[in-house]
Amino acid sequence: MLKRTIGAGNVNESIVGNVVVVNGWLHRKRNLGGILFLDIRDRSGIVQVVVNPNDISKEKFESIESLKVESVLGIKGIVKKREAPNPKLKTGMVEIQLKDFEVFSKAEDLPFNPFSPQDVDEIVRLKYRYLDLRREEMRKIFELRAQITQSVRNYLSSKGFIEVETPYLTKSTPEGARDFLVPSRLNKGKFYALPQSPQLFKQILMISGFEKYFQIARCFRDEDLRLDRQPEFTQIDMEMSFVEQDDIIELVEDMYKNLFKEVLGIEISTPFPRIDYKDAIRFYGSDKPDTRFEMKIINFTDTFKDTKIKVFENNGSKLILGLTIDDANNISRSEVDRLKDSVKQFGVNGFVDFKIQGGEITSQFAKFLNENERKEILNYAKDNSLITIFVVDKKDGFEKVGRIRLFFGEKFNKIDKDKFNFLWVVNFPFFSYSEEESRYVAEHHPFTMPNPLDLDKLETDKENVRAIAYDLVLNGNELGGGSIRIHDPELQKRVFKAIGLSEEEIETRFGFLVRAFSLGAPPHGGIAFGLDRLVWILSKANSLRDVIAFPKTTSGTCPLTDAPSEVDIKQLDELGIDLKDG
Amino acid sequence: MLKRTIGAGNVNESIVGNVVVVNGWLHRKRNLGGILFLDIRDRSGIVQVVVNPNDISKEKFESIESLKVESVLGIKGIVKKREAPNPKLKTGMVEIQLKDFEVFSKAEDLPFNPFSPQDVDEIVRLKYRYLDLRREEMRKIFELRAQITQSVRNYLSSKGFIEVETPYLTKSTPEGARDFLVPSRLNKGKFYALPQSPQLFKQILMISGFEKYFQIARCFRDEDLRLDRQPEFTQIDMEMSFVEQDDIIELVEDMYKNLFKEVLGIEISTPFPRIDYKDAIRFYGSDKPDTRFEMKIINFTDTFKDTKIKVFENNGSKLILGLTIDDANNISRSEVDRLKDSVKQFGVNGFVDFKIQGGEITSQFAKFLNENERKEILNYAKDNSLITIFVVDKKDGFEKVGRIRLFFGEKFNKIDKDKFNFLWVVNFPFFSYSEEESRYVAEHHPFTMPNPLDLDKLETDKENVRAIAYDLVLNGNELGGGSIRIHDPELQKRVFKAIGLSEEEIETRFGFLVRAFSLGAPPHGGIAFGLDRLVWILSKANSLRDVIAFPKTTSGTCPLTDAPSEVDIKQLDELGIDLKDG
Repeated sequence: MLKRTIGAGNVNESIVGNVVVVNGWLHRKRNLGGILFLDIRDRSGIVQVVVNPNDISKEKFESIESLKVESVLGIKGIVKKREAPNPKLKTGMVEIQLKDFEVFSKAEDLPFNPFSPQDVDEIVRLKYRYLDLRREEMRKIFELRAQITQSVRNYLSSKGFIEVETPYLTKSTPEGARDFLVPSRLNKGKFYALPQSPQLFKQILMISGFEKYFQIARCFRDEDLRLDRQPEFTQIDMEMSFVEQDDIIELVEDMYKNLFKEVLGIEISTPFPRIDYKDAIRFYGSDKPDTRFEMKIINFTDTFKDTKIKVFENNGSKLILGLTIDDANNISRSEVDRLKDSVKQFGVNGFVDFKIQGGEITSQFAKFLNENERKEILNYAKDNSLITIFVVDKKDGFEKVGRIRLFFGEKFNKIDKDKFNFLWVVNFPFFSYSEEESRYVAEHHPFTMPNPLDLDKLETDKENVRAIAYDLVLNGNELGGGSIRIHDPELQKRVFKAIGLSEEEIETRFGFLVRAFSLGAPPHGGIAFGLDRLVWILSKANSLRDVIAFPKTTSGTCPLTDAPSEVDIKQLDELGIDLKDG
Repeated sequence: MLKRTIGAGNVNESIVGNVVVVNGWLHRKRNLGGILFLDIRDRSGIVQVVVNPNDISKEKFESIESLKVESVLGIKGIVKKREAPNPKLKTGMVEIQLKDFEVFSKAEDLPFNPFSPQDVDEIVRLKYRYLDLRREEMRKIFELRAQITQSVRNYLSSKGFIEVETPYLTKSTPEGARDFLVPSRLNKGKFYALPQSPQLFKQILMISGFEKYFQIARCFRDEDLRLDRQPEFTQIDMEMSFVEQDDIIELVEDMYKNLFKEVLGIEISTPFPRIDYKDAIRFYGSDKPDTRFEMKIINFTDTFKDTKIKVFENNGSKLILGLTIDDANNISRSEVDRLKDSVKQFGVNGFVDFKIQGGEITSQFAKFLNENERKEILNYAKDNSLITIFVVDKKDGFEKVGRIRLFFGEKFNKIDKDKFNFLWVVNFPFFSYSEEESRYVAEHHPFTMPNPLDLDKLETDKENVRAIAYDLVLNGNELGGGSIRIHDPELQKRVFKAIGLSEEEIETRFGFLVRAFSLGAPPHGGIAFGLDRLVWILSKANSLRDVIAFPKTTSGTCPLTDAPSEVDIKQLDELGIDLKDG
């Protein structure tokens, strides 16, 4: 085997005259006046190889000339200085004059050109994932992903965290998302479940005295898929004992500081700002605010309580919310009118606009404003800004205007894409009401510690119970979330009951956890981060699927391997199951 | 919360007089003449706390006195020098005089004492795994496990390997072990399989140009379980492009050298010895020889071809194999007789023994030996040794005597337990005949490269085709194995056919791989190591289950969580499956 002595991308002027061997893919091939120019590509880069018909036999020349691109070769030759350097290539000052070669693999015609994938249907790209992954920008994503996990692992290990592998064949405890089930052959009629997270196991590890645990763990949720959701995904999962919320927040901030410095060479400043869940909704209409731009939501409901402007008249079921667009001088009248149409996609029926110019409010509605309204508006608006005011339902008005805020931010280039704005959202509500199930469910999960100040409301005033739960947000994306956990068996049972579990259900599903709490459980808490999303943000990849080596489609299939597939009836027999209509 | 200022095990004389807070479990409690002595335990160790009834209120004293062991506490107090130091404890020179405390968790009566687990049934220990894991020696195993994986990760990353996560929801390709299946809800009637290894994906990554891949990957096999087998297990999995067997062997040797130095502080010498598969069987009766002791198998079949000793008479279907026990002077006649009984457990019907003393052979059979036989025996025996000679079937005689060799090695203390003897076994046979399936199957797997010298025998002389496959053995345990892979689509199809797959089966199961080989595949190969076994050997843990945080029993159950369990009929409906008799 003609074995590599140097990476293709590392050939350079310092070794002119040396004999080298490169191994790689035939990236490009041209015949210029009887001389063959090959670009050979490997992980390190690309180098040009010149094949002069005088250097090898006619037979060998024809054999190499006939190769199709993406064939795999070993090339032996002499490094020469190029007469016409190619400044676009790292190796552009040199080329290799071929003396011998070995064909490792003859490629057939490709189904598509992997180096201009933009025209190719994604299903086809996934079917030939190995062609798509040959693009350098794709491989770089996975190099980055590996660096991120390794940085996190080294950081947490250095802080005394023990990485522990928890089981993937575990018990079905349907609370929240749907479980993937695995029929047990040795226990017919019974099923394992693939874990939605290592939550219970990491809590058990705290009760085991491990004190600091982490794992980069695969998690599984059998949900209907969307473009940014995969049936299996990876979490950076951690848990600590004898801690309070601040301890976890501080550790995480230091971890990200270290990660950004080590992997991206970027200094981020800590501590990260914190915002109350209520304020996040009030000012940004989102529990994951993008704070790379200001444009806070202004609540004008009170301001306009005695308004003469008809559309603002309110029977108490409506909110009047505003957004200010600064430096709006170049936004034309007709553009504003088009904007009024655009916001309808967010379920909002247009808006009333006021332009501020020279300290004056100009608008078709300006003449209806009373003194107080005028003052309030000017209070929130710099000169040359446009104030847009929306009349929305109380129920979800902040969320809708929050989405419009993001839309305006993008549209008017208010978002600094080079910024990394971290933000903690704290004081989440403990419960949320599930219309689907007609009951209160745990907003984070039922192992979360309720705020001790709200314990008396657990049964009677669920809407106002806060959780010791916190989310970390980066540029409007939820990186992850966590909570302080319950460690008292009685409180845990009370919470289970508050979300509607019967004594029997508590025992069957979570009896082992309650029992564990009664045999010496430390105060503990933790957090988990979605690795895929983190890599997606940091790599600026086009899609979540691009940061997963072998992703599934939105229908849960893998076009490469054709999974899932039909199986032999014998396999089902062994498992003691039948297809329902088969 | 009374939050820890120091680990319990770190309290020492240098901080006598300081006020400290420790957090931990109540390990032990004694009342000596009205003064309470508590041992508080956390991950760092144990410290003694003295509770003087004068220091706190009567109420508080009674409350702390009433706590049961394994309750969790925060203790605030002053570090004092002990009047009677305890040399057995790291903190034995000091104690903490309690000034205040907080009870985090009141423990109930324990189901067993976690610190003398030897009397407890393993099922009970697994049910209360968190108690069992509180023992320091258990936690140390997981600390070691984490160090091993982190060392391997850092080593491979530093060598340019990219850790890539491959899917756990993949396609069923039953070849070898049985797959765990996962019914697909979005594609009713179809199933994912949990991977038996990332084999196909890592090969696809090579075809994708990643060149160096690794992953510490969970693998799944639905086999009948034995004590040393788990349904899910962890592999250190790697693959490289443009390499030959020696490249992989060298890398792995360096990886283990680094691992042993970094984690255990032990220098191991490389290169590791290599042995041919055939010689491993011939000399050790095993494809994973324990070379910590010599005692090679001696083949006396030819020696005794004209024997006068009746039991050695041979119609050609038998082998006559010997083992020499050195320094056998203290083995009595009656012990030898008992040995003859003992070997029956290995399916061997006793043996003939010769004792060598003063250059003479003493035995009831000595008088029947001819000159040549006498010479041969003396050839293999030092003075004072005992030669045992077995008559066994050709079919599995070496393996049986190999097991007796290990038995003798243990029995006569011939094994140096401090040694780490690595050994490569190379030149494995490509095929083995499966009686069960009445066909030849691939001994390693069907993606293995056959030895190019043996290609002409692929269809006609399967017994004599060698594979470019290699196993790494440590002290008689298989750490892992690998091979150079096929990268030519035609050869791959030929091998699939040689193990009895039809064209159609090849297409359905492995079509995507064959297709990938035709679009530019580099020569590649790899290896995978069983992490659980490696940790088991290095930690000297009692069982494989002790190195897995939450292991399954031999019936595939988890006594802690009660997995697998029955599931709601609604869940099965959604998946489109039925229980067969339910």
